[in-house]
Amino acid sequence: MTHAPLPMAADDSERCDAARNRRLLLDAAIGLVDERGADSVTMDAVAARAGVGKGTVFRRFGNRAGLMFALLDHTETELQQAFLFGPPPLGPGAPPLDRLVAFGRARLDLVAVQGEVLRAAENSPVSRFSAPAHAVGLTHVSTLLRQIGVSGDVTLLAYALLAPLEATLVLHLQRDAGMTTERLADGWEDLARRIASA
Amino acid sequence: MTHAPLPMAADDSERCDAARNRRLLLDAAIGLVDERGADSVTMDAVAARAGVGKGTVFRRFGNRAGLMFALLDHTETELQQAFLFGPPPLGPGAPPLDRLVAFGRARLDLVAVQGEVLRAAENSPVSRFSAPAHAVGLTHVSTLLRQIGVSGDVTLLAYALLAPLEATLVLHLQRDAGMTTERLADGWEDLARRIASA
Repeated sequence: MTHAPLPMAADDSERCDAARNRRLLLDAAIGLVDERGADSVTMDAVAARAGVGKGTVFRRFGNRAGLMFALLDHTETELQQAFLFGPPPLGPGAPPLDRLVAFGRARLDLVAVQGEVLRAAENSPVSRFSAPAHAVGLTHVSTLLRQIGVSGDVTLLAYALLAPLEATLVLHLQRDAGMTTERLADGWEDLARRIASA
Repeated sequence: MTHAPLPMAADDSERCDAARNRRLLLDAAIGLVDERGADSVTMDAVAARAGVGKGTVFRRFGNRAGLMFALLDHTETELQQAFLFGPPPLGPGAPPLDRLVAFGRARLDLVAVQGEVLRAAENSPVSRFSAPAHAVGLTHVSTLLRQIGVSGDVTLLAYALLAPLEATLVLHLQRDAGMTTERLADGWEDLARRIASA
């Protein structure tokens, strides 16, 4: 059964523009984080980089906190897409232990780039563990542990695996303790293998 | 060689009074936390329970944040005394794995009683991992892992063991996820044994 394409109403066209605008602004913000750190993401800087007026950024995100939240949401969604639907070893198709190790590395890479944004979200005590992103990660890690055949309190083991990946701790280890992302990733893989093999 | 006791100067007497007063106020605050939760700890309530004027509490701690910090410091010091110098299995004399398991349980008991206070301190991103209390706990856990004979990146494994004991996560698991302290303690013991046995 085929449908003739519906004529695009003014509403749809506006929604298209809005989505395109939002993506343009988020790309500008991501570029700023990558190149100059999260502190450089101001409403002014995002507007300038995206080549739009400052009013557009304020209309879209309200304030800097709103922009940062949108950025975090976007980044988390991309990671979720990758582990749920992307290519192996992060996505389906690889052995579960390989997928678990890939998840830890992907999460650490994300923190390395956007740590400040994640950290700001984590330090809100109410939302830290009840954020949808945390719930999806928890379900994913629990599922992989069960597929590996890990016995015991799998939910708590999943929490224990996610805790050392939190941006606040990772940033402390990188900045204050001088550890490399590689060392953290190797350490997390070791942790995951110890939990999986017992 | 013996010394005759020095006559007590007015200064010493004042210091004694100050220490006694401080202890009296902290005991009152601990009693309030135990019975009615950290939210109930106000300068007024502490003064009333200790049977002193409100001005005494303000002179001693400055404000509520100062009182909470003193309370946390006192509690952390008590736990440190217990694992460094107290009786086994928490203190010296027991096998290192038994001491490690006892440490996790003692830490969780502390969170159960004074979680709000600990959580308030943890959510200060600067001090969370650089607090002296965290450093002492990290050294203790690292030392026990080495005594057990754990190979690999022992420092990172110690961080991984401490992360699930953080008050913010523990309170979330207890309050939002409805887990008992017993379940958390058993889960942490399982984690410690997996890390130790691999």
